[in-house]
Amino acid sequence: MTDSNDDTRTSRRRFLTGAAGLAAAGAAGAARAENPKNLPPNVADWSKHLGDGVAVRPYGHPSKFEKDVIRRDVQWLTASRESSVSFTPLHELDGIITPNGLCFERHHSGIAEIDPDDYRLILHGLVDRPLIFTLENLKRLPRVNRIYFLECAANSGMEWRGAQLNGCQYTHGMIHTVQYTGVPLKLLLEQAGVKATGKWLLVEGGDASGLDRSLPLSKALDDCLVAYRQNGEMLRPEQGYPVRLVVPGWQGNIWIKWLRRIEVGDQPWYTREETAKYTDLMENGKARKFTFVMDAKSVITSPSPQAPIRRKGFQVISGLAWSGRGKIKRVDVSLDGGRNWRTARIDGPVLDKCCVRFYAEAEWNGEPWLLQSRAMDETGYTQPSKDALRKIRGVNSIYHNNGIQTWALKANGEVENVEVG
Amino acid sequence: MTDSNDDTRTSRRRFLTGAAGLAAAGAAGAARAENPKNLPPNVADWSKHLGDGVAVRPYGHPSKFEKDVIRRDVQWLTASRESSVSFTPLHELDGIITPNGLCFERHHSGIAEIDPDDYRLILHGLVDRPLIFTLENLKRLPRVNRIYFLECAANSGMEWRGAQLNGCQYTHGMIHTVQYTGVPLKLLLEQAGVKATGKWLLVEGGDASGLDRSLPLSKALDDCLVAYRQNGEMLRPEQGYPVRLVVPGWQGNIWIKWLRRIEVGDQPWYTREETAKYTDLMENGKARKFTFVMDAKSVITSPSPQAPIRRKGFQVISGLAWSGRGKIKRVDVSLDGGRNWRTARIDGPVLDKCCVRFYAEAEWNGEPWLLQSRAMDETGYTQPSKDALRKIRGVNSIYHNNGIQTWALKANGEVENVEVG
Repeated sequence: MTDSNDDTRTSRRRFLTGAAGLAAAGAAGAARAENPKNLPPNVADWSKHLGDGVAVRPYGHPSKFEKDVIRRDVQWLTASRESSVSFTPLHELDGIITPNGLCFERHHSGIAEIDPDDYRLILHGLVDRPLIFTLENLKRLPRVNRIYFLECAANSGMEWRGAQLNGCQYTHGMIHTVQYTGVPLKLLLEQAGVKATGKWLLVEGGDASGLDRSLPLSKALDDCLVAYRQNGEMLRPEQGYPVRLVVPGWQGNIWIKWLRRIEVGDQPWYTREETAKYTDLMENGKARKFTFVMDAKSVITSPSPQAPIRRKGFQVISGLAWSGRGKIKRVDVSLDGGRNWRTARIDGPVLDKCCVRFYAEAEWNGEPWLLQSRAMDETGYTQPSKDALRKIRGVNSIYHNNGIQTWALKANGEVENVEVG
Repeated sequence: MTDSNDDTRTSRRRFLTGAAGLAAAGAAGAARAENPKNLPPNVADWSKHLGDGVAVRPYGHPSKFEKDVIRRDVQWLTASRESSVSFTPLHELDGIITPNGLCFERHHSGIAEIDPDDYRLILHGLVDRPLIFTLENLKRLPRVNRIYFLECAANSGMEWRGAQLNGCQYTHGMIHTVQYTGVPLKLLLEQAGVKATGKWLLVEGGDASGLDRSLPLSKALDDCLVAYRQNGEMLRPEQGYPVRLVVPGWQGNIWIKWLRRIEVGDQPWYTREETAKYTDLMENGKARKFTFVMDAKSVITSPSPQAPIRRKGFQVISGLAWSGRGKIKRVDVSLDGGRNWRTARIDGPVLDKCCVRFYAEAEWNGEPWLLQSRAMDETGYTQPSKDALRKIRGVNSIYHNNGIQTWALKANGEVENVEVG
């Protein structure tokens, strides 16, 4: 723990020798002695008999004690579950990798169930050689593996008009981070031969909504992937099985799932999803279009409304930070609503357009905290306050709210989503 | 694809325009026209109706079309499933992260099912302050996130006496790679205060086998973790829920699962699992003990016996390489049983004591291949041939077989596990 100072070491020792020393633990054991099921650890029930053998679960599941670590939707948020969202339980996770079963969902017509043998990807338009790819074709091509965050443009969207949802699962849970395996889109475009007039792509999904977006050719040639795996295994159905587009650092709705068609054209298509939807309505009634990039953002995942503090003393404050413009350079944490800041420890790999995990340590003795985090990326950009965003953009928008989040810690350890000054 | 040369580009183009051009795809479609269910992709069945909504599966599962991507055991290998192994389907995966549901299992008395509220970790012996930790105690401490491989000492153990098992799932599938979140063991030991005479730890599991091993204090203070998460979520039951030891680069059986006790002593304990088992029996009847480190190793996962080649032409050869002594520096691939070698492309992050993914591209037109890979690590060590290992260690051992694997590719695209020279 190279960033520990003497104060936190002292604090940790107090915590350990005070609360968890043998004497204290013994007392806790005695308090439960009336329950014969609670045996001391060295003769615990699970130490006395054989458990399930190998391959009883050929594909494994989490422990039954973790049954509440799940994606959740908000029923009043949308008219139907087919065009809706479920949120990643960020408050229950650590590190940077999201397990595949907990990656948030956002569908426009539910989960298309595609037979991989019948899957086709069409690449046509302003190209020399129109191509159709089967899944087997795609799998035979050179591929790369990249860990990226994927954030929905509407993540934190409810917060534009003030603190709304009590829990980082709901305020910030439309983000996940996995390792994708896929073919560089550039490679497919090179094989098709894009004509000199080709400047934009239409990328279209195979679900019933046929969700389509216009993608600049320059981005397609830069770092986009036609991906078919997440964290090693094939994509999950709700993430576009068998093939999705990966558009690093850009808003999630252009990461087309169940990808069926790529058309090369000379200008954007102005589809419904980039005109009526996914534009940023300003105060004067005009709308910004093609605001693709997700700017630097962060959130404290613990403590947070769903992860209150249960004991005074030494605390580890933890969260995630990310930027669609490159690597995260620094994360600061404030305990007093942004008056004073301390630099957090970023732990684990720092990758391009990928979440980082940060930690800050502090002693808490029941005083009120106003917890905030702010991310800085390698371009020099610093995550703004929500009010700074509102001054420029008003409160008409749903999208691209990357303002600093505030959690109010109360004397009883509970945490609330609040607005500050 | 910065490593492509003109030859492979030409090859890729031939493949694409030949097999997957619009004309070819159209012909394939016509051949299936008698089946009315096989509609062209733009009006596929899944594009015509709503799919399942969000949070229908609060914790997600793979597609039903991936039902064969599972851990498998070999029933004749062990007398019972409680003391046995199931293997990771390496041939079905890519990248470096193993999804939690597919991490191989090795138990000695089945899966202990531990109630996290009743979990305790005891730290005692030659320490100033014996300590007991609840899970909540551990979760409140400073933590780190590290991606490591975990390999069983017996991985490839059946191959000492010649090619035995047909598939990299069985020959090499006792390895997985996830991101762990945990407390540095060093921190716990510092808080307990190890006495000057303390040199070794006994680390003991809470399952019915009470599996225990002796761990040198120097390793414990270096990089070991007391981990409770894998890929963000809590450990899976079969991986030691709620707490396991992480001993980076060392053989898997010392990564004690369901960790219940750490005792500090002045010498090793010589437990059953490091005397009768997990020693390396040499030709002269003597045995090497405490051969903790897993040396550099690699395997081609595709093509491989369970992943044959289905079409001639351009091929991507892919595999994994790892070293318990640090980072992988280079991986070479041979098509002719080790006579000629080419350097593979290592893709994605190259991390300490972690798997890397490698790729090599080649044209195949039905000729026999003898596929091999060899890993080199940053210490300068090169993965040896199986015969080189046998010359030193004989064939009595089950453990630490890191010899070069050979796959024979036949004219029909099938692949077999073979021995060469």
